[in-house]
Amino acid sequence: MSIRVGILGYGNLGRGIECAVKQNADMELVAVFTRRDPATVKILHEGVKVYHVDEAVNMKNDIDVLILCGGSATDLPEQTKEYAKYFNVVDSFDTHARIPEHFEAVNESAVKNNKVALISVGWDPGMFSLNRLYANAILPNGSDYTFWGKGVSQGHSDAIRRVEGVADGKQYTVPVEDALRRVRAGENPKLTTREMHTRECYVVAKEGADKARIETEIKNMPNYFADYDTTVNFISEEELQANHSGIPHGGFVIRSGRTGWNEENNHIIEYSLKLDSNPEFTAAVIAAYARAAYRMSKEGMKGCKTVFDVAPAYLSPVSGEELRTHLL
Amino acid sequence: MSIRVGILGYGNLGRGIECAVKQNADMELVAVFTRRDPATVKILHEGVKVYHVDEAVNMKNDIDVLILCGGSATDLPEQTKEYAKYFNVVDSFDTHARIPEHFEAVNESAVKNNKVALISVGWDPGMFSLNRLYANAILPNGSDYTFWGKGVSQGHSDAIRRVEGVADGKQYTVPVEDALRRVRAGENPKLTTREMHTRECYVVAKEGADKARIETEIKNMPNYFADYDTTVNFISEEELQANHSGIPHGGFVIRSGRTGWNEENNHIIEYSLKLDSNPEFTAAVIAAYARAAYRMSKEGMKGCKTVFDVAPAYLSPVSGEELRTHLL
Repeated sequence: MSIRVGILGYGNLGRGIECAVKQNADMELVAVFTRRDPATVKILHEGVKVYHVDEAVNMKNDIDVLILCGGSATDLPEQTKEYAKYFNVVDSFDTHARIPEHFEAVNESAVKNNKVALISVGWDPGMFSLNRLYANAILPNGSDYTFWGKGVSQGHSDAIRRVEGVADGKQYTVPVEDALRRVRAGENPKLTTREMHTRECYVVAKEGADKARIETEIKNMPNYFADYDTTVNFISEEELQANHSGIPHGGFVIRSGRTGWNEENNHIIEYSLKLDSNPEFTAAVIAAYARAAYRMSKEGMKGCKTVFDVAPAYLSPVSGEELRTHLL
Repeated sequence: MSIRVGILGYGNLGRGIECAVKQNADMELVAVFTRRDPATVKILHEGVKVYHVDEAVNMKNDIDVLILCGGSATDLPEQTKEYAKYFNVVDSFDTHARIPEHFEAVNESAVKNNKVALISVGWDPGMFSLNRLYANAILPNGSDYTFWGKGVSQGHSDAIRRVEGVADGKQYTVPVEDALRRVRAGENPKLTTREMHTRECYVVAKEGADKARIETEIKNMPNYFADYDTTVNFISEEELQANHSGIPHGGFVIRSGRTGWNEENNHIIEYSLKLDSNPEFTAAVIAAYARAAYRMSKEGMKGCKTVFDVAPAYLSPVSGEELRTHLL
């Protein structure tokens, strides 16, 4: 029998979940829920209905795992704890600083209602976090480095577009090659914000706008750009559409650490991602963890969990015997 | 209270475990067991005794986890199932093809005696296996690539030393850069054995030996070298000692896979290790899993497990709250 999946919220991530469900033969999409008028939301699957979000709870017996695709700022802090009353849920809550309080709220609700709620699933938090944990446990004496990119930062792109005279814009976060090289060489460098990443902006100026003023304003924007070496490239709207409409991302998690009686040996553990589509990859991770949530719930587990709490075998559709034979 | 660790077998791996225990503040070395005369075995810890292996069972109440550091060919198939009767155990059984039968035998013994037995812990099998599993679960539609090196292969070095006229030798397995590049570029190439790795040999010839014959014999050795592009470098014993006495290793596990409704997007997941000391890194992984074995046993779990069955949080000395706050 298939794992019956519901999607709540249909933006880039929700669409990515749809694609991931299609690729996983043991999953089946049952329903998509939206806050918009369902008639206006066109999904990819034929024969699967779009419902208003108010109808979700009525379908609690038809769905094994509900995947919450809202934003971390205001949606998920309300939604995850609410829907964990009725469903096993997975979210991709990614406001690192607020994870502990989110965990507590969701845990209370999930424990009380015998549901499994997996939070902060994706790649950072998510796969990057996992690799930080494994590498720290293996090499207690060492240093962690996380580099992001090359990839599109939605927040920084939004910030550019708020500058007066800007019609459109995209921002790429780019890791500094020389910093990566030094970390990989085991130098354990102390790196400033500026030494780790640069920021590349592609900006479409409105007609007659003062480009020099736009460039200065972007480069000196506190928090977003002031602490980085930032380049601003003015291009046409056509060029932006043609060359910068994708949502690629990725990055590197590296731990460099020493072993030996006198710490004479160095080791580098590196995990990296190069993603054509940030939301589709995030969705692919979530789909695997939806399988885990379903199985853990079947085994009687309950409460809020993160990727740290999920034994890897739960993620795979393949049996333990097959995993040991083919992947170990 | 510390986790009380015992080591059975004191070669490179056992010595590595000693170093790892020293780095983990929550662990304590209680005893080392050897098949040799204990008086002849000098360990690094002061105040820790070396016992004959026959005394191990008498200390079953003094040891929380016994780490088995024997070889996979003949030692571990006997030892792991035997000691799992009395101890929580961890081994690094690495004969991939025989893992299923080893698992069954150890599982029977561990279940019957309420012990946790973690087998095949290290980096391959071990961390590489984990990364294959995670990446396969996330990207069901894709290809796996494992490259090893640059590193010393003990088996191939032994093979060189068995050639007539060879006094000493070391063999490095080296991944082919161009193959790595093609995989990382998302080309999903089909690669032959020869296209993935080369073999570099450093050979000390006996006085008067026929070097041309030695080179030919090495290069044409079936299974070991015939399917590879092999280079043979003749050097002096002094040079071998000076430049090739380490045991470095490492490698790359890469999965390249596609997502999207029409599989329009490609993603590369890469995990790599660059290790100064193969046995010390293996030992560092084992130490973290010894912590997991101890905790899982405390929670009432039992039976044979692999890295696939261990939730990552068990590996870390840090609490769930701290992990969520600092590493997620």
